[in-house]
Amino acid sequence: MGGDMADSAASRGIDAARLVRPGIGEDIHRLAAELYPICRSITGDGVRQSLDILDRHLALERTEVPTGTEVLDWTIPREWNIRDAYVKASDGRRVIDFERSNLSVLSYSIPVRAHMRLAELRPHLFSLPDEPDRIPYRTSYYAERWGFCLAHRDLEAMADDDYEVVIDSELKDGALTWGEHVHRGASADEVLLSAHICHPSLANDNCSGLAVLALLGAALSGVATRFTYRFLFAPGTIGAIAWLAANEARACRIKHGLVVSCLGDSAAPTYKRSRRGNAVVDRAMAHIVATSGPGGRTIAFSPYGYDERQYGSPGFDLPVGLLQRSPFGEFREYHTSADDLDFIRPEHLAHSFGLVASLIEIVENDGLFINLAPKGEPQLGRRGLYTLIGGDKGAPARQMAMLWVLNQSDGSHSLLDIAERSQLSFSAILAAARTLEEAGLLAPARAQDRPQA
Amino acid sequence: MGGDMADSAASRGIDAARLVRPGIGEDIHRLAAELYPICRSITGDGVRQSLDILDRHLALERTEVPTGTEVLDWTIPREWNIRDAYVKASDGRRVIDFERSNLSVLSYSIPVRAHMRLAELRPHLFSLPDEPDRIPYRTSYYAERWGFCLAHRDLEAMADDDYEVVIDSELKDGALTWGEHVHRGASADEVLLSAHICHPSLANDNCSGLAVLALLGAALSGVATRFTYRFLFAPGTIGAIAWLAANEARACRIKHGLVVSCLGDSAAPTYKRSRRGNAVVDRAMAHIVATSGPGGRTIAFSPYGYDERQYGSPGFDLPVGLLQRSPFGEFREYHTSADDLDFIRPEHLAHSFGLVASLIEIVENDGLFINLAPKGEPQLGRRGLYTLIGGDKGAPARQMAMLWVLNQSDGSHSLLDIAERSQLSFSAILAAARTLEEAGLLAPARAQDRPQA
Amino acid sequence: MGGDMADSAASRGIDAARLVRPGIGEDIHRLAAELYPICRSITGDGVRQSLDILDRHLALERTEVPTGTEVLDWTIPREWNIRDAYVKASDGRRVIDFERSNLSVLSYSIPVRAHMRLAELRPHLFSLPDEPDRIPYRTSYYAERWGFCLAHRDLEAMADDDYEVVIDSELKDGALTWGEHVHRGASADEVLLSAHICHPSLANDNCSGLAVLALLGAALSGVATRFTYRFLFAPGTIGAIAWLAANEARACRIKHGLVVSCLGDSAAPTYKRSRRGNAVVDRAMAHIVATSGPGGRTIAFSPYGYDERQYGSPGFDLPVGLLQRSPFGEFREYHTSADDLDFIRPEHLAHSFGLVASLIEIVENDGLFINLAPKGEPQLGRRGLYTLIGGDKGAPARQMAMLWVLNQSDGSHSLLDIAERSQLSFSAILAAARTLEEAGLLAPARAQDRPQA
Repeated sequence: MGGDMADSAASRGIDAARLVRPGIGEDIHRLAAELYPICRSITGDGVRQSLDILDRHLALERTEVPTGTEVLDWTIPREWNIRDAYVKASDGRRVIDFERSNLSVLSYSIPVRAHMRLAELRPHLFSLPDEPDRIPYRTSYYAERWGFCLAHRDLEAMADDDYEVVIDSELKDGALTWGEHVHRGASADEVLLSAHICHPSLANDNCSGLAVLALLGAALSGVATRFTYRFLFAPGTIGAIAWLAANEARACRIKHGLVVSCLGDSAAPTYKRSRRGNAVVDRAMAHIVATSGPGGRTIAFSPYGYDERQYGSPGFDLPVGLLQRSPFGEFREYHTSADDLDFIRPEHLAHSFGLVASLIEIVENDGLFINLAPKGEPQLGRRGLYTLIGGDKGAPARQMAMLWVLNQSDGSHSLLDIAERSQLSFSAILAAARTLEEAGLLAPARAQDRPQA
Repeated sequence: MGGDMADSAASRGIDAARLVRPGIGEDIHRLAAELYPICRSITGDGVRQSLDILDRHLALERTEVPTGTEVLDWTIPREWNIRDAYVKASDGRRVIDFERSNLSVLSYSIPVRAHMRLAELRPHLFSLPDEPDRIPYRTSYYAERWGFCLAHRDLEAMADDDYEVVIDSELKDGALTWGEHVHRGASADEVLLSAHICHPSLANDNCSGLAVLALLGAALSGVATRFTYRFLFAPGTIGAIAWLAANEARACRIKHGLVVSCLGDSAAPTYKRSRRGNAVVDRAMAHIVATSGPGGRTIAFSPYGYDERQYGSPGFDLPVGLLQRSPFGEFREYHTSADDLDFIRPEHLAHSFGLVASLIEIVENDGLFINLAPKGEPQLGRRGLYTLIGGDKGAPARQMAMLWVLNQSDGSHSLLDIAERSQLSFSAILAAARTLEEAGLLAPARAQDRPQA
Repeated sequence: MGGDMADSAASRGIDAARLVRPGIGEDIHRLAAELYPICRSITGDGVRQSLDILDRHLALERTEVPTGTEVLDWTIPREWNIRDAYVKASDGRRVIDFERSNLSVLSYSIPVRAHMRLAELRPHLFSLPDEPDRIPYRTSYYAERWGFCLAHRDLEAMADDDYEVVIDSELKDGALTWGEHVHRGASADEVLLSAHICHPSLANDNCSGLAVLALLGAALSGVATRFTYRFLFAPGTIGAIAWLAANEARACRIKHGLVVSCLGDSAAPTYKRSRRGNAVVDRAMAHIVATSGPGGRTIAFSPYGYDERQYGSPGFDLPVGLLQRSPFGEFREYHTSADDLDFIRPEHLAHSFGLVASLIEIVENDGLFINLAPKGEPQLGRRGLYTLIGGDKGAPARQMAMLWVLNQSDGSHSLLDIAERSQLSFSAILAAARTLEEAGLLAPARAQDRPQA
């Protein structure tokens, strides 16, 4: 993040605080609740309906990639849609019913319409013995199978009956769909913000991420930015792969990126680094989660997870990390019916929204500055910037931020560098830089200001 | 610390042990006790009287910078002197009395001579509700104010009386004063040792530092050194700034530097790194405090503290760290009347003296050596340098030091490098190097001895 | 480990699992038990008898270096042999008897044949007051002395008697002996595996190391390898120095090396780094001990220990580390009669054998590979390499290993790099690489595949 920002000034640029408006958490939760009931999968009308809902908040450009299209090492599969599915006992009672929960059907199940005894049906039933009240979420995208998911307690209650088994689904040539919104900035360099849109009724994973990004995109509307922001809502894995295939030449414009999921639970945030490990997005997000409250943590990259795996494949190696609260697979509600609308809370959604807004604040405002009075400390007191009664034990945080900015601004330390070293929030460092710039003590660094190596 | 020492030999050069004579702790305490009663501030006769006392131990060159002189971003203020100050109750009793403690007056108070009720006086009174028996130390150098500091218990005992309020002070054109002593070494490269001389009756902060440096300077007298040593006794902030303004072109000669304060309390030493973070002084002091006894610690640089802030401003960026025992602001006696002569003890003052002497030992003696029998271990036993009965569990420390020096002396690891890696004290490594040099097994490295990259 | 492996393929090369056959621990213990009773020292027939025993398992080339030969800074001492030794009380009872334990004699004792009172004998007696039932092991190679070692309890029971004192030893011109076995590989580059052969009846230190290496050498017999392996059985210190003196020009062929000792006790393994600190052997062994089970640890180099001191002297600086279980000097049985055959167990010996085999696996198989489908993840499912029912919490270890290999194989990360970063065992990473190579997704990297810096 170097010379091309030499003309930036700390006093322009957007703030996280400006993006996070009151009530945002409730608005996100309301949007997540709209998305929640829809039966999404990696293809099909569930994705389209979800994009319709998001589109009411953020204008989306939609792309449909036909079945059979080769995308990198993969092929777009047939499109899957489902109308109904159930297992009916001989007394006419639906013991499993897609209408009650769209998790009840193994996602991408082929159609079936048969009668069978429990013994024959049993290999097609998935449950969680350790969580007997929860319906698991299972998929079989690339092997032709059918199956049902149900609470283990319900499975154990099933008698050896003659069951009517119906999955009224359809697999036919169609398309894979994604939606994206591009907020144009001064530069063609992009920030990618991406959320998967392929899971059915799982609130945290990922109605939360979809809703956060849509409303963040809306909040950016009309705001002049340095970077171009791309909001991408695509099915996991195959959607990201299809997008990369379609954007192979342009992908290198992505300078910073974040995949988001599971943004609504009560855990402290977890940032997973990009494959590069110490890209600007990694430094920025590690700083943000460390200074955003207790418990925030940063973990190493691994090639398992969400679509950071695809963006971080060696042929692209894009600097795209993953922001979550509870990491996938590590919370008991994960991929079960307990990941519902009660599991995500407005306050956590708002906090997550703020974390992504803070990333925007950093990439928009980071830069190199130069202390215009670099010999000794400038006398802040006569400029009204310093407490005038001395002798106290510590300096207030605002003064410390100014002292840090002055001390480090020799043209080689960016505001993010200073925030990291001082362990003060980037917002505090940015505010100090603006104050000092207004006082004539700080200016954006020009190339000739940088120290000789 | 490289090629220019190729001609140095481990067997010359001074030892810390030679500088630390018996009784030094008591002598330092005695000198601190002489300095303690004086009412110092950033300008005025208190500084001059203190320099008079120090001058009896270490010849000082004195500099006076006139009021109004521009020094970097600052201007030398008017000179402040005070004869008396009190608050007298209607019964004639002095409830606050400068004669009892010079902390009683807000430092740099403008003159006042008035009668007033408690309500009018109250905003001018400073106390510590949490430490009701202690008088706080407060200053107001750059805003024209007057005030008194007193024990909170005394404040609470003040009745609503008609008080006579007198501060017989004077602010007039004069000068800011500092003193310095230069011990000339073989090289014009300097080691700066600096202590602030602007606090009134506070024993640890900084009669302790003034006394340690003065007697260390005296101990160096007549000793041939590699470096030139500059002992600087200047008022905090404005004094350092004035010195830097006067020495702007020469400041780059400072190759290593240390600010000292709070050297007499019972805490283990704390070294705060210079802005550079890993300068030789930082490595040396981190090593010294780690090996000088339990609890010693090294902390990161921050732009708040003593005059390392000024030396470490980006326009100078000098490698000057800070040595303390209890860090400023972190002990309950800090900037209160409890920082008295009982709070500092001869044994801690002597220990601190030894720490600074150890820094001198390192910068005087560090260098690159070369093992003259580098293939396999040389047979120390036949040279009388090794225990001859084998089979024991460990080697004595003296042997370990020799093995480390031999193993690492390939022309690329200095004695300090070896001390760091071995976690043995520099003194032990130096002694081993001298022994090995005498045995013909070690020699100073020449340029051609250094390993090819 | 770079370009010269461009032609290697993950699917050839040897596995640790192939070297570790069932029953190996019992075989090692049996061989250690054969070696145990012999009275070894740094020279003499004890070494030759030990080499005779090892030679039955692994053909050894023997070298004899005559007394008086100058080897680096040392001289080969006279050869020491002993027939008998005892201290006999006036009642004819041998209170100390070499026949009962060869630790009873100070190793390299000069002959003695005398009668003396206890007071005269006492300075020649060594015991362990803190371990009163154990006989210590002591040596005096380079000072002419004689002495006895005995249990402190026995020492205290000695009356003031007239003792017959006999050490029937001989110090005369002879030779120092070592044995070595070379397993030729495709390259002249060598892996050195070295164990000291100079300690008498101490089972862990080092009958264990001798037996492990001899049987590992036997297991390699007939196996085609990339590297040449040199198994060296030499007396400690002087033996390694003599070997280095004789191989001064060829020593640089040693690309990786390991000294082994104390391989049979119940502690988790400890790897001590080579002088270089982060050589391939250091990275490989640190990885191996970290992934071989709980408690394994890696410690820094220090110039005290076994012959890694000599290999790591600055004139050679060979990348040779030390593998132990309990580190020397840190277990209570160390250098006492309690280091006996019960102290070492087949299961620990087998585990240690596996650790060295794992090093062989790494140096034989490490290399750079390139993902042939680097854009996005290749679709493992259609190749039968991926679980087809999705939605579970984690991926099996085998899949994770494949994902790691694919993600990191851009021509700049070797399999060891990937094992380190993933914290999966090298064996798992190697197996994944082989699977992917068979599936056509991975190939050895050629020079042109490496990323541009």
